[in-house]
Amino acid sequence: MELKKLYIYIVCIAIAKCAAVPIQSKDELCNLSPEIVSDIAGYAEVANKIMDYFIKGPFKGKTWERLSDFVDKFGPRSSGSKNLEDSIDYMMVESLTNKLENVHAVECEVPHWVRGEESAIMLKPRIKKLPMLGLGYSVATPSEGITAEAVVVQNFEELEALPSERVVNKIVVYDQPYISYGESGLYRRYGASEASKRGAIAALVRSVTPFSLATPHTGQQMYLENVTKIPVAAITHEDADMLWRQQKRGENIVIHLKMPAILDTKISRNMVADLKGSDNSKKLVIISGHIDSWDVGDGSMDDAAGCFISWVAPVVLKELDLIPKRTLRTILFTAEELGVIGAQAYEAQHKEDNENISFLMESDVGTFAPLGLFYEGSKDGECMMREVLKLFASINATEIILQEPAPDISVWTSQGYPGVGLYNDNPRYFWFHHSEGDTLNVEDPNILDVAAAFWAAVSYIVADMKYDIPRD
Amino acid sequence: MELKKLYIYIVCIAIAKCAAVPIQSKDELCNLSPEIVSDIAGYAEVANKIMDYFIKGPFKGKTWERLSDFVDKFGPRSSGSKNLEDSIDYMMVESLTNKLENVHAVECEVPHWVRGEESAIMLKPRIKKLPMLGLGYSVATPSEGITAEAVVVQNFEELEALPSERVVNKIVVYDQPYISYGESGLYRRYGASEASKRGAIAALVRSVTPFSLATPHTGQQMYLENVTKIPVAAITHEDADMLWRQQKRGENIVIHLKMPAILDTKISRNMVADLKGSDNSKKLVIISGHIDSWDVGDGSMDDAAGCFISWVAPVVLKELDLIPKRTLRTILFTAEELGVIGAQAYEAQHKEDNENISFLMESDVGTFAPLGLFYEGSKDGECMMREVLKLFASINATEIILQEPAPDISVWTSQGYPGVGLYNDNPRYFWFHHSEGDTLNVEDPNILDVAAAFWAAVSYIVADMKYDIPRD
Repeated sequence: MELKKLYIYIVCIAIAKCAAVPIQSKDELCNLSPEIVSDIAGYAEVANKIMDYFIKGPFKGKTWERLSDFVDKFGPRSSGSKNLEDSIDYMMVESLTNKLENVHAVECEVPHWVRGEESAIMLKPRIKKLPMLGLGYSVATPSEGITAEAVVVQNFEELEALPSERVVNKIVVYDQPYISYGESGLYRRYGASEASKRGAIAALVRSVTPFSLATPHTGQQMYLENVTKIPVAAITHEDADMLWRQQKRGENIVIHLKMPAILDTKISRNMVADLKGSDNSKKLVIISGHIDSWDVGDGSMDDAAGCFISWVAPVVLKELDLIPKRTLRTILFTAEELGVIGAQAYEAQHKEDNENISFLMESDVGTFAPLGLFYEGSKDGECMMREVLKLFASINATEIILQEPAPDISVWTSQGYPGVGLYNDNPRYFWFHHSEGDTLNVEDPNILDVAAAFWAAVSYIVADMKYDIPRD
Repeated sequence: MELKKLYIYIVCIAIAKCAAVPIQSKDELCNLSPEIVSDIAGYAEVANKIMDYFIKGPFKGKTWERLSDFVDKFGPRSSGSKNLEDSIDYMMVESLTNKLENVHAVECEVPHWVRGEESAIMLKPRIKKLPMLGLGYSVATPSEGITAEAVVVQNFEELEALPSERVVNKIVVYDQPYISYGESGLYRRYGASEASKRGAIAALVRSVTPFSLATPHTGQQMYLENVTKIPVAAITHEDADMLWRQQKRGENIVIHLKMPAILDTKISRNMVADLKGSDNSKKLVIISGHIDSWDVGDGSMDDAAGCFISWVAPVVLKELDLIPKRTLRTILFTAEELGVIGAQAYEAQHKEDNENISFLMESDVGTFAPLGLFYEGSKDGECMMREVLKLFASINATEIILQEPAPDISVWTSQGYPGVGLYNDNPRYFWFHHSEGDTLNVEDPNILDVAAAFWAAVSYIVADMKYDIPRD
């Protein structure tokens, strides 16, 4: 399907979470100079020193402890919320307390989408509450809600094939199977628009997850141009499948959907904290996560833990008196969940920094046991990162996966800057993703130590090594 | 802990779901007569014929289809509810349509506990809604709810060790780890009573499950004699752990708990349908499940699927014209979840049948891939069931686990009647148990076919074989 292909392309570009089937480089022939190889190999000892400090040294358990203080204090941190701004203030104070440098926050305008007391109830063939979560940017229903017949489809093709009278003024329910986040997520992203094109008045989408305990998963959706914006929410696997079965039996399905929701804009901030380079401090290695989350769970996994491993890296290097040659800059991006807003704003506001950016790192698909790195950039850079990863054989974190590394830094890597994401053992990532299940319970203190150790050691090497990683 | 031991004993007796650590018989020395062994071995062909009919014959997928029609039509079926009674009527009609005999329902009085619009909110140190489910038989809070400081403990010993002023007029939160359903479930069962003894005004218990997506799990709880009945609810792993961390930080935790709940009695019914024996029809083999469920999810797993494999057994045997010598009696028990009420009533009402009961079967810990049978009864009976299971080597369902087989039939097996439960590959059983996650999505059509096939074939053999299984 052309439409599907186009959407997958758009989604992969925008979200960089399409790594369900990671592509490994076929061409591992590298032609690095012996000097480069030797320079990188020389970091073996310091890499182990950093790792030990996290895994069995004074910092053991500390990343989780700081993460837990943070998420328990603030809970979820949605774009434009007071929680998010308070949490940014907290991280600035923490950065100063931990003697990071150049601590500041850069304002930008962000979307502020807030769900109200929303609900979906199946009224026919029997009364059943449908656990649901409105999708980001969804318009509200009228205050009294919408009551309409539902029509259930398993894919866009089925929707297209329906006669008009089966769709107009109906609620379209997508009961698409879970194939991958990229592919199944299309129904979350564009389900409302496609339903609206056919005259539907609302859409409900099967949550994008491989596993459910009657758990709705929210996420961003976008209205295509020139379509009437209709309300859209995620429902559970269980209910979507049940509605599909009811329809197959010929039952008349009626659903009442009530979704108050507001959308305006607020000012938020990208937070910056540096470990100033010892030698070539103008050059920047950016290490990052996004501090905003969805408004459910506490966003420990997506992406507070990614922020914390990126934030403790300079803190620990400073404690160890390991000051790299280049400046290591932690950025906690804002408003990633509503469309990589913070990173785009930061890039636009700091064009003058761009020439100084040497390398970028972001963790945003979990902080489970590290397996290696997602990499995007020049071939020589890939070869250099392969040399770096040879130093992490002891923890089996040696793989390079060639793909967009992470959503925020893709603003730069898509321009040719080299960057990496944390490739980790996350087969259950989407079980928790954008749901009430994304909490601190996902994060194992010992595994988090290993992820943080790996991440900090990699950041030190790329910020300190003699040779720059070339741009593409 | 004596208290704990006592409770585990009580729970195991009452609930028969303590099979986390199944005990395998050490003594497999059997001294059956060659006639018995040969008689049972003679059922190999007919067992395969029955199995094939389910797994690759005309009944393939039918058990799941009938189960889906049922659960989609009625949803959850809590004790005393109209849903439950409607679902019993439906099964009676289905039984008649499928030409089962002696179809009737026997009335009994059952508890009718109904939750109202309940909620728990953490007010301090920050505002957070705590997803929760009141526990069965819990008293209500006053209509305005209860607002009180919380004190968090990880076990009964910690509660006992607390000074009085830390407990009196507080809400006790149990953040017990998940060890097993039997052991961890003690906090669900007796947490309110133990907290009340110390002067607490409500209790919240970490849901009894090994895995959570912020999922509360309900269940029965009992007030001990001479304690003030206080409201009690299950909260999620995530929140219980978070409250524990907040307390460790020295935070003042305040929770608002609102739980309307009513308890009265209603008339419900145990449903009976027979496949009349060809030769010795007075003798009964009972095959059963419980038709009631909790009021969340749709109770597909606990225990509609158990009912359906027990109900399709006589239906399929009739279709195959395999009429066993003894009468095969399907019983769908009512009100199991609130304390094995239906089975106890049935037994009390049918004392005259007891001498005719030859054998009992019940499926109530899932209908995943069968592994064998839970067995309770005489040693010779055990030996005979071992011979029966030799016929199921092709599906690897050959193990005997010596324990109480299932809650309803334990009313008889505890008196020496031989009985079996369906031992199946259910490591995720408690993930779904008593939660919104207990739905048809738990049930795989193909696996359910194998469970139904095994169950029906075993029922035919024990109802038809030449020699009675002796009582203990």
